[in-house]
Amino acid sequence: MTSFEDLPIRDDLRGLKPYGAPQAHVRVELNVNENTHPVPPQVVMDIMGRIHTALGNINRYPDREFTNLRVALAEYLGHGLSAENIWAANGSNEVIQQLLQAFGGPGRSVLAFPPTYSMHSIIASGTGTTWIPAQRDADFEISPATAVTAIKENKPDIVFFCTPNNPTGTPVSLETIAAAYDATDGIVFVDEAYAEFAPEGEPTALTLLAGRPRLVVSRTMSKAFAFAGARLGYLAGDPAVADALRLVRLPYHLSALTQAAAEGALAHTPAMLAMVEDIRQQRDRLVTELAVLGYTPYPSSANFVLFGGVRDPQEVFEKLLAQGIIIRDIDMPNHLRVTAGTEAETTEFLNALAALDGSINGAL
Amino acid sequence: MTSFEDLPIRDDLRGLKPYGAPQAHVRVELNVNENTHPVPPQVVMDIMGRIHTALGNINRYPDREFTNLRVALAEYLGHGLSAENIWAANGSNEVIQQLLQAFGGPGRSVLAFPPTYSMHSIIASGTGTTWIPAQRDADFEISPATAVTAIKENKPDIVFFCTPNNPTGTPVSLETIAAAYDATDGIVFVDEAYAEFAPEGEPTALTLLAGRPRLVVSRTMSKAFAFAGARLGYLAGDPAVADALRLVRLPYHLSALTQAAAEGALAHTPAMLAMVEDIRQQRDRLVTELAVLGYTPYPSSANFVLFGGVRDPQEVFEKLLAQGIIIRDIDMPNHLRVTAGTEAETTEFLNALAALDGSINGAL
Repeated sequence: MTSFEDLPIRDDLRGLKPYGAPQAHVRVELNVNENTHPVPPQVVMDIMGRIHTALGNINRYPDREFTNLRVALAEYLGHGLSAENIWAANGSNEVIQQLLQAFGGPGRSVLAFPPTYSMHSIIASGTGTTWIPAQRDADFEISPATAVTAIKENKPDIVFFCTPNNPTGTPVSLETIAAAYDATDGIVFVDEAYAEFAPEGEPTALTLLAGRPRLVVSRTMSKAFAFAGARLGYLAGDPAVADALRLVRLPYHLSALTQAAAEGALAHTPAMLAMVEDIRQQRDRLVTELAVLGYTPYPSSANFVLFGGVRDPQEVFEKLLAQGIIIRDIDMPNHLRVTAGTEAETTEFLNALAALDGSINGAL
Repeated sequence: MTSFEDLPIRDDLRGLKPYGAPQAHVRVELNVNENTHPVPPQVVMDIMGRIHTALGNINRYPDREFTNLRVALAEYLGHGLSAENIWAANGSNEVIQQLLQAFGGPGRSVLAFPPTYSMHSIIASGTGTTWIPAQRDADFEISPATAVTAIKENKPDIVFFCTPNNPTGTPVSLETIAAAYDATDGIVFVDEAYAEFAPEGEPTALTLLAGRPRLVVSRTMSKAFAFAGARLGYLAGDPAVADALRLVRLPYHLSALTQAAAEGALAHTPAMLAMVEDIRQQRDRLVTELAVLGYTPYPSSANFVLFGGVRDPQEVFEKLLAQGIIIRDIDMPNHLRVTAGTEAETTEFLNALAALDGSINGAL
């Protein structure tokens, strides 16, 4: 049998394994930070109507500019944004890939602050962009001075922030982002995939966009909008950023079905976001109760919680999985990550964790 | 106002304009080789049912391996292929981009035979792959000797064929593809986007796959399947090729809606392909009647016809557009390209062309 290594594949891909969180289908799935609440039936019905319309014309290419969708996304974001500030693709992964195709690539570099979303470095590698990891402060924070020092030392073409950060849940302050912007002539990219779960009053980098044409903020419908299966990521920035991405995007990259479904969901924003407050409560409950169990959870502004103090993360992962509960082993010593699910799912996870034999699998 | 050129964009993108066939919505759209027949209502109903099911779980990420879809695509293609031979993405453009990310890229080259599908060179550029154009023989043909000579001279990492070729309609013989394969240690890629429109008995490169692990054949549901709006391109090749693409694909790149819709369409293959024979007849009619009008159409195995002998292509394009008929000005002197539409659309195009003032706009 031929292996991919027998083919004339690029040398930098030899020996690699594909990205892949386990896609086990079990009773309680708290491993990939999905929104565990299904889309409400009345929204499904509206989307079905729009899909039916789209299917009537599906023999034609979709609107390459997805104008109606950009209008709806701008309206949802607010902050004075309009359609020309918006760009979208099949998941924020594709948005980031396009951003690196336009502003990164061979001979260019991206500075980031691990631990962070694992796809960031994978997409850098896939686009030939040099990945420069910089140190965070204690408790995964990034002060303005830390960011500026890393930028001055490394002179990257692009700076990546992720706020709230995956997998730590840590927010990055606007002061840090603004200081980073002033310290570079490059692109500053802020991944806000989990922004809707932030506590009330925690500001978004969208408020920094005016007057900063090199600042780009991305969002996704996968998380707060419970729309991971529909694959819709997007960004807000100067219209010139969208123009740059038009040079590297594959034409018609967003299908007519994707556009119709996303427009339908955005027409029901209050219904789609109704569960966000429940999820925040379960997230805060996880932080409280994990501490009671003797673990060291980090404060989180996202829909998941990172917790340390785990004697043997792989063993805990396996024991929970055997009970139909999947969480995430992120390969960080003594740490695990868990998504905030429904109240029942969160209870089931906490009870199963509490029942583990502490001498073998429990907290340190 | 900021222009994208004011941003720190890659130097090789400066001065470029985005790909874009005009997306004018007029009465008779024969410009982008779509299938002008809508999807039959009974197929739409089946797809709606599958989409409804998918929406019930749309808060979850889609099957990253799109296994059911690969099974259905393999079954459709036949030729002893099974799911592990298949890979798919959001349009064959994305399939090609992934192929070049895995086997092309900086320091590598792709040999192709222009004039050919314009996205091929754009995707080469977008992935940093050197584009090597080689000469065709007379009448846009490529003999085995021509292909082998070009390969020996240029030693490319990848060889691209397009059969039937866009924009010329010309098929490439299996002898040429097999000879090219034997002449290179690289990947041989055959874009068969229009294969279903080929005359009965014209063989597909799928028949060459067995024993040739470096040969890759792509197809699309955009054309014969009347599914351009759904964005589903795919390839068949050795399972090792799919494994290589798993290293560069963005995870969850195919949405649950795309998977559901494509599976629904494939479950009704005979109904979806019922119009192919009508389209072939209109294609042959175009060749016959364009010759009668004094133009020089090329024989075509696709759903479009390239014709020469046009005094002023831009003027003819504009005059037809003013009457609500859009065809394609492909920037080839004295040539235009027209898609074979329904019988009524084809008639309208031919009548409008015949009625043009020959002294200004007509045939040479």
